[in-house]
Amino acid sequence: MRYKIIFSYDGSDYFGYAKQPNKKTIQGEIEGVLATIFQKEVGIFASGRTDKGVHALNQVAHFDLDKEVDLDKLLISINKLLPDDIFVKKIEKVEENFHSRFSAKSKIYEYVINFGEYNPLKRNFEYNFKNIDIEKMKSASKLFIGTHNFQNFTSKEEDEENFIRRIESIDFNIQDNVLKIEFLGNGFMKYQVRKIVGVLLEVGKQKIDEKYILEFLNKSERDIVTFTAPSQGLYLKKVIY
Amino acid sequence: MRYKIIFSYDGSDYFGYAKQPNKKTIQGEIEGVLATIFQKEVGIFASGRTDKGVHALNQVAHFDLDKEVDLDKLLISINKLLPDDIFVKKIEKVEENFHSRFSAKSKIYEYVINFGEYNPLKRNFEYNFKNIDIEKMKSASKLFIGTHNFQNFTSKEEDEENFIRRIESIDFNIQDNVLKIEFLGNGFMKYQVRKIVGVLLEVGKQKIDEKYILEFLNKSERDIVTFTAPSQGLYLKKVIY
Repeated sequence: MRYKIIFSYDGSDYFGYAKQPNKKTIQGEIEGVLATIFQKEVGIFASGRTDKGVHALNQVAHFDLDKEVDLDKLLISINKLLPDDIFVKKIEKVEENFHSRFSAKSKIYEYVINFGEYNPLKRNFEYNFKNIDIEKMKSASKLFIGTHNFQNFTSKEEDEENFIRRIESIDFNIQDNVLKIEFLGNGFMKYQVRKIVGVLLEVGKQKIDEKYILEFLNKSERDIVTFTAPSQGLYLKKVIY
Repeated sequence: MRYKIIFSYDGSDYFGYAKQPNKKTIQGEIEGVLATIFQKEVGIFASGRTDKGVHALNQVAHFDLDKEVDLDKLLISINKLLPDDIFVKKIEKVEENFHSRFSAKSKIYEYVINFGEYNPLKRNFEYNFKNIDIEKMKSASKLFIGTHNFQNFTSKEEDEENFIRRIESIDFNIQDNVLKIEFLGNGFMKYQVRKIVGVLLEVGKQKIDEKYILEFLNKSERDIVTFTAPSQGLYLKKVIY
């Protein structure tokens, strides 16, 4: 039997989603709780990793069990055992061929920038970056929409055969001094959103312009942009199946 | 020369505002930074204490120096040395007779309740409490407005000669699943806002009614209500002079 879980977490105190030996990770915590409940190892497979300090509002993972379980009870048990910075919102039974990563059609990420005064209460939840020309950023963001080779807007560790991804939309929402940039795309590589936001912020500071973006989007050789917005502003908002 | 500082802090990791031996406190951190900068002890006097886990958006304190200082430079130095969960927003020179506590005319506190799904990202910044009748709470809140003896709505440690305080207004603001209750009054004792919110939440759950509130507001003997909303939902929002 395959089960799908939807969960949210504050990534501040974790070394990212993916399990690593002797490090506190989201996957490690959830698998630890499942092992306690089922008295055996239960591996979970997520829609994708999130890096150290990155948050998730609706991360999705699946796992397999050899029996039917009472999902309401399981949900309560899991949340009772999980630390209070991880919360499972939903568990449901899915088809055996459902795969949290390969079945995903698209993903929504959001990046949060406070362009006003530094707020110590939000230090782990937004990036404080002042004096930006948001109209310029908005205009430049359109260059990333569509199907592109994002080899220069990803981590150098990312070593895919195929760096081509499609970004459907990039939306800007401003409320008070907070800018939220929402990315909808068919998949994002490591650092991809943070590299794009990093570049957009440089555009906002008028340090680079649209030509710079076009150059790096169209370069045939790999030459990764150096700008990377920090992790605490990034949220995995939704995985669409 | 007397100086006034306005500062904000995330109270999550502190044993409250007030200095205590061998404990991490807001006052202790700021005085530590001032001692480093001025190479001598500089005591700060705040408008009031906030308890363990309580936040401040605009706390005010004053301190005295025997010389004129460059306030712009001082502000930068202080924030450079302070941990990132405390932030000094403003420093200004004030009259010698200004006193952050005694000159204060009124204060605004806010209490934040999420009555929707638990949000692990907000666990230190709101109280998650479901199934409340907000209209009933709003109606009951009116009983606290005006001048009352709040002896039964404060901490038992509070041992004032005079428990009479005046609450000017209690405003309810709802956005999505978040209720913010804003209190404006001439002064609040230890736990006063949290006791009032605790009682209002019981009204919201329909466990007690307005009669209960009237009884405890009008009792001549001291008989403190047991309900106390937790610290993480409480914010000192503003001190008015």
